[in-house]
Amino acid sequence: MKSTKLTDLLGIKYPIIQGGMVWVSGHKLASAVSNEGGLGVLGAGSMKPDLLRHHIKKCKNTTSKPFAVNIPIFSAYSEEQVKVIIEEKVPIVITSAGSPKKYTQLFKEVGIIVGHVVPSVALGQKCEQAGVDFVVVEGFEAGGHNGRDETTTMCLVPQMAQAIKIPFAAAGGIGHGSQILACLAMGADGVQIGTKFACSLESSAHINYKNEIIKATESHTALVLKDLMPVRIAKTQFYNDILEAEKSGKDLQEVLGKGRAKLGIFEGDLDQGELEFGQISGLLKNCLSVSSIFDQFIKEYNQAKEDL
Amino acid sequence: MKSTKLTDLLGIKYPIIQGGMVWVSGHKLASAVSNEGGLGVLGAGSMKPDLLRHHIKKCKNTTSKPFAVNIPIFSAYSEEQVKVIIEEKVPIVITSAGSPKKYTQLFKEVGIIVGHVVPSVALGQKCEQAGVDFVVVEGFEAGGHNGRDETTTMCLVPQMAQAIKIPFAAAGGIGHGSQILACLAMGADGVQIGTKFACSLESSAHINYKNEIIKATESHTALVLKDLMPVRIAKTQFYNDILEAEKSGKDLQEVLGKGRAKLGIFEGDLDQGELEFGQISGLLKNCLSVSSIFDQFIKEYNQAKEDL
Repeated sequence: MKSTKLTDLLGIKYPIIQGGMVWVSGHKLASAVSNEGGLGVLGAGSMKPDLLRHHIKKCKNTTSKPFAVNIPIFSAYSEEQVKVIIEEKVPIVITSAGSPKKYTQLFKEVGIIVGHVVPSVALGQKCEQAGVDFVVVEGFEAGGHNGRDETTTMCLVPQMAQAIKIPFAAAGGIGHGSQILACLAMGADGVQIGTKFACSLESSAHINYKNEIIKATESHTALVLKDLMPVRIAKTQFYNDILEAEKSGKDLQEVLGKGRAKLGIFEGDLDQGELEFGQISGLLKNCLSVSSIFDQFIKEYNQAKEDL
Repeated sequence: MKSTKLTDLLGIKYPIIQGGMVWVSGHKLASAVSNEGGLGVLGAGSMKPDLLRHHIKKCKNTTSKPFAVNIPIFSAYSEEQVKVIIEEKVPIVITSAGSPKKYTQLFKEVGIIVGHVVPSVALGQKCEQAGVDFVVVEGFEAGGHNGRDETTTMCLVPQMAQAIKIPFAAAGGIGHGSQILACLAMGADGVQIGTKFACSLESSAHINYKNEIIKATESHTALVLKDLMPVRIAKTQFYNDILEAEKSGKDLQEVLGKGRAKLGIFEGDLDQGELEFGQISGLLKNCLSVSSIFDQFIKEYNQAKEDL
């Protein structure tokens, strides 16, 4: 795969970022991705500060390549997580779910490269203005938390390519090497891939959750909680309960409760848990090692390029 | 641009189909697209059978290249339209919004090539089983009528490439030459493009509608009427009225009334009319001739290919 502004910036071989995912992307997944030449990302959203420090230390011991931490800014622990990241000299941070203004300067002052995840071109431009080094633009088809405008990856990528000068990765719906080529063709400098890695052997998710991804067809997920905080999840009993609560006007917070993502993704409860994954699950038919996933991506990418 | 199974099947130079669009794609647009080497398509959804015959005759007089007619199968006029198409020996038909089983064999018996528009991989497979010659698979980001599963173009294309053997075009969110290359990279045999042609000089739409496309940002459209018959439209007063009616439980049919698409698209009423166009409107910044659009696509496609 070709080098891009993003691979140069991050010091990685392939233009592939592994999405930071709660209950999925610990040190095993992140270091495996970095070792293969992509950017492994610890998903700090499900880690208290001490646990995050543990995963960072493990990553440092298991890869000599760059890796990153993803912090959802709205999290109650984000300030403490920022401290841990700076103390541990993590080379790259990807912030999300909050203003890029909040921590960007702080990280940059200590030499940390900063990316930010956005669901729209307008927010990509705000990142550039805030001094962010690179953007991850994520479409409607992505698993997990999502934007309100429902703009898809296909529409976001060429618009972002025209709107900003800093490098950006395309995210949402990507799980095949030909799609990496497609995103580069549309002007992205790389991709961020979630669901495919969530289903890898190195992912810390429960086997039930991985099997649910493999079983999924193209219509197995949907975006819910559009008025509260949009999130793409599998259509399970929990999903049905949300729809019913929305229709009947029940208190949503009561239906949602706490710990649903942990229950579904980490503990494997397919009825009552929240299973966050993306639309591209319909394409994924097996659970592979990160090394095999990279081999597959490279083969598919080269085949697609040859066929053009 | 490269030849594909689809350009071979249809006898066209470029793998570009112009979407059949109500109140937009009459003989002027369709023949201009065919003359440039794409597949021009008359949108019969807004034409009574006699008017359709008039447009077909005009097309025959203004292009010697293949062109097609798109028929929404659910339309009250579809049977009469089928008769007209057969009598006038139209070379290609694209059916939509109904079962591909209904007319496919009838058309094929008289040597007409049949395409069918679908919003899912599963329905693409049904088309193949029904003897359809090619499929147009349309993602969530497309303007106008849309599927219930909300699957995006990015996710549909690689899955369709694995699922069927007949040629298929990708539709939804495509308005830039680099995206044509991207869709071919992901395994499509061509693309169908709507909004960009709806905004062309040769489109029969009202100038107010074209200006609305040019003015649109990435978040200017939304999918509405999800429980009735999903359609992507611009966020106008009419759109707000629909949302309000859905919330308050009003009779939707009463709010919708009749002739809203004509009022918006053809007569240019931006408040009370229904403005069907796609998410990619955010990328479109001017109203060009079909000839200039093809020049642009070819230039953008080649540039993207060179940069890979």
